[in-house]
Amino acid sequence: MKKPIIIINFKAYDTSFGKKGIEIAKKIQNVSKQYSTEIIVSVPATMIYQLSSELEIPVFAEHVDGVPLGAYTGSIMPEMIKDVGAKGSLLNHSEKRIRLDEIDDALKRLRGLGLESVVCVDRYDLVVPMSLLKPTAVLIEPPELIGSGISVSKAKPEVITRAVNEISKVKDVYLVAGAGITTGEDAYRAIELGADGIGLASAVMKARDPEKIVEELVINSLKACDENE
Amino acid sequence: MKKPIIIINFKAYDTSFGKKGIEIAKKIQNVSKQYSTEIIVSVPATMIYQLSSELEIPVFAEHVDGVPLGAYTGSIMPEMIKDVGAKGSLLNHSEKRIRLDEIDDALKRLRGLGLESVVCVDRYDLVVPMSLLKPTAVLIEPPELIGSGISVSKAKPEVITRAVNEISKVKDVYLVAGAGITTGEDAYRAIELGADGIGLASAVMKARDPEKIVEELVINSLKACDENE
Amino acid sequence: MKKPIIIINFKAYDTSFGKKGIEIAKKIQNVSKQYSTEIIVSVPATMIYQLSSELEIPVFAEHVDGVPLGAYTGSIMPEMIKDVGAKGSLLNHSEKRIRLDEIDDALKRLRGLGLESVVCVDRYDLVVPMSLLKPTAVLIEPPELIGSGISVSKAKPEVITRAVNEISKVKDVYLVAGAGITTGEDAYRAIELGADGIGLASAVMKARDPEKIVEELVINSLKACDENE
Amino acid sequence: MKKPIIIINFKAYDTSFGKKGIEIAKKIQNVSKQYSTEIIVSVPATMIYQLSSELEIPVFAEHVDGVPLGAYTGSIMPEMIKDVGAKGSLLNHSEKRIRLDEIDDALKRLRGLGLESVVCVDRYDLVVPMSLLKPTAVLIEPPELIGSGISVSKAKPEVITRAVNEISKVKDVYLVAGAGITTGEDAYRAIELGADGIGLASAVMKARDPEKIVEELVINSLKACDENE
Repeated sequence: MKKPIIIINFKAYDTSFGKKGIEIAKKIQNVSKQYSTEIIVSVPATMIYQLSSELEIPVFAEHVDGVPLGAYTGSIMPEMIKDVGAKGSLLNHSEKRIRLDEIDDALKRLRGLGLESVVCVDRYDLVVPMSLLKPTAVLIEPPELIGSGISVSKAKPEVITRAVNEISKVKDVYLVAGAGITTGEDAYRAIELGADGIGLASAVMKARDPEKIVEELVINSLKACDENE
Repeated sequence: MKKPIIIINFKAYDTSFGKKGIEIAKKIQNVSKQYSTEIIVSVPATMIYQLSSELEIPVFAEHVDGVPLGAYTGSIMPEMIKDVGAKGSLLNHSEKRIRLDEIDDALKRLRGLGLESVVCVDRYDLVVPMSLLKPTAVLIEPPELIGSGISVSKAKPEVITRAVNEISKVKDVYLVAGAGITTGEDAYRAIELGADGIGLASAVMKARDPEKIVEELVINSLKACDENE
Repeated sequence: MKKPIIIINFKAYDTSFGKKGIEIAKKIQNVSKQYSTEIIVSVPATMIYQLSSELEIPVFAEHVDGVPLGAYTGSIMPEMIKDVGAKGSLLNHSEKRIRLDEIDDALKRLRGLGLESVVCVDRYDLVVPMSLLKPTAVLIEPPELIGSGISVSKAKPEVITRAVNEISKVKDVYLVAGAGITTGEDAYRAIELGADGIGLASAVMKARDPEKIVEELVINSLKACDENE
Repeated sequence: MKKPIIIINFKAYDTSFGKKGIEIAKKIQNVSKQYSTEIIVSVPATMIYQLSSELEIPVFAEHVDGVPLGAYTGSIMPEMIKDVGAKGSLLNHSEKRIRLDEIDDALKRLRGLGLESVVCVDRYDLVVPMSLLKPTAVLIEPPELIGSGISVSKAKPEVITRAVNEISKVKDVYLVAGAGITTGEDAYRAIELGADGIGLASAVMKARDPEKIVEELVINSLKACDENE
């Protein structure tokens, strides 16, 4: 992953799959190319193949099971998402919480396959415990702000500040901030507070003009990154 | 669905996805065409698109979530599997049990989209309760025999007989028998006992010669069907 | 169980256990004695022993696990609740949903021990499927009305009417109506619509004068019962 | 908690509750008094009141939910177990795994009430992540050895050694070793390897003479403790 990390979680809106999903992904790729910035899209398992085949931006799964290959029905394993082109996976999103041993299992499996991982947490107390399991990044999202349109950067800047402070105790794990991030200013502020990047979903997936909002997020993320240096 | 119903659940073996998965699916299609018999494959969500695009046999999901489209991460909805070409879904497999309200939600959603559904149960007491929710079929599998190589037809024929008797109380729901079905004789016997078809996984997915075993299953299923008429 | 069935689910309020819980239970017993009416209290597992020892009204568990005795940690089995004096258990409350096979396991275990059972459902489509598993009663509660103060009798009388119609297809299972029942009129109306009784929680547990509201519920339930005959 | 920490998890055997459960608890208390050693018993929620009332040894719950008091059915909260006399709770036993956010919630609630906590983990990689949430102790149990009669001290001494090394990075959290501990020698060896104590279940609960085995465990634990100093 490269800073600023920008992760767009497609979730399961009517814009998240099918023609609409592909269309949004292409718009995100346009911005990615224009600004030479990596933008990760995390998408439903059914869409990984198509998006990985047609696009160049990194495609992540929204969830992955850490159980070994074998007699499991309805599970999605790291080998399966890699096979269809995924570069990594979200884990433990507040809408798909799993147990710590399951997270550890999944992270070991993803790592073994050279895939990246972003583990979500809902509080800064859990940043170090999760980071010790060595994901590529920890994404902190106060769940009450997810999809609220009120950004963590504005409403709870101390969550970012403390999470940044926590992650600094562990080597080589990125800290991404999410929940309610909607505007360029939200992105700018999150990175200014020390986050390595931003995660968001509804602000893009439910936007009238997704390309415009993604562009605004990228410009402001790049600006905050530059100023931090 | 057409009798004899033959459902091959790919599960999550190393043969269930990627090139190997596509190869097995093609062999299954060969048999399907040769004997003009429908064979359903139930596959990992990541594989639905490729298999539906490249093949003509009906592709099912191994699981589907009944929640409406919206802010869900890592869920696979009926609309998503339909979009990539699935014709239906397994539900409530013993390796992916869900609650009754979730099954009802998923069945309503699948039905609304014109998709088929096969709900798994582990005992004949649950055949009528599940059938009342109007899936296309109920698949009964005593879990202790799944993957055992000892078939329900031989080890517990009374489970099939009683399940057949139960399902007859409800209109328009098929009864499929599964667990340990490995040989043509197992298939023949299950249908002879009154089942509308068979479900199996490891006997095909872990076979040296999957095409041969599928052919044997089809021949014997057709024979039993003919004799029942 | 005797009609009218009145079930007060203590839940986990600060009034649901300890001295306050015992005090409310005693008030409920006062009303029960005064009107010679059975009132069931469903209480936290930690409270069953004390309430069963000190009181004569039937005490139920709020939940019970259907697994057999053995190497389970943190599970509450039917034998355990019977040992401390419980007469039965709620199952599958919307705040503690379990799977259909788990419900069937628990019901068989409860029945084998001579304990009663009340299985909750959230929709009339599930009334017959659940009734076929032979609980003592099915409690229907549209979850959006639970704790709302807006009663199912007023807001969704058709839910009760249809559930009553459904349950009539199955022998010997009571139909109890719940969700938002707060006043005597709510109780009267539910039973007038055909329910065998009522289930409620917050209206009593959060009341200033729980005895008064219980009395009002009992008087109106008895009145509706009389008029139905 | 005082070293050597000895925790006997009653689980849900037919000896774990009722008269048999009380009888075993009294035998454990006899040994505890004779050797002036604290022995913790972790018991089913239904039994906490009786055992706390009749005995002086510390009684723990086998599990506790971290949700706040309110509209929850079938949950056991820290306030409830404290009310009936518990001094603490096990959390996250391999037979009752919960998520990390739930563990953190429960630990905060237990701490706020002055109750102790023992969080179980199945691998040494999770010792530090869990310890950072500040339980009183972490209990490490390789799940494949639980109830096996083959002790972690003999079969996987390196699990204890590494866990002891891990916990030393965190202040004020005890490390307890469990799984398969059956004999005095198993206990001696676990503490000799650096554990602050031992956890066990079946070796006592399924013993012909529980008092004798508990005595043997205590003598050997005390001996190892003395020699470590």
